Amino acid sequence: MKAIVTVMLKNGVLDPQGKAIGHALGTLGFAGVGEVRVGKRIELELAETDPAAARKAAEEMGRRLLANLVIESFTVEIV
Amino acid sequence: MKAIVTVMLKNGVLDPQGKAIGHALGTLGFAGVGEVRVGKRIELELAETDPAAARKAAEEMGRRLLANLVIESFTVEIV
Repeated sequence: MKAIVTVMLKNGVLDPQGKAIGHALGTLGFAGVGEVRVGKRIELELAETDPAAARKAAEEMGRRLLANLVIESFTVEIV
Repeated sequence: MKAIVTVMLKNGVLDPQGKAIGHALGTLGFAGVGEVRVGKRIELELAETDPAAARKAAEEMGRRLLANLVIESFTVEIV
């Protein structure tokens, strides 16, 4: 199955990449753009066929490697 | 409203970041991990209140700034 791990900076953590995108959109003439936040989307092909086990594995991958839990949080979606 | 633009490398484009994650997961002892692809998730707060207009604006942002259409494709979700 496929696991999608989405990693975003926690609320309150400064997101300079998002700020840069917001500024660039303003420069390009896009009006009405408020806060911009940028995160990562990691798509993993897993051999596991049980959705619950796949979710558990993906959550452990998130905790141990994919997210820095000091400043980031992550969600897992199994598709 | 909020627009979520997801930018992924096109199929067939080498994804070294994904390869590195797949390798690191193997080193950590996770078995059964196949292909790993990494993309960006960009969340934009838009002043626009009409969902169709917000989608149109976000799609133009994707084309003009957020994605490199030579090697990346993007999808827009309005929430």
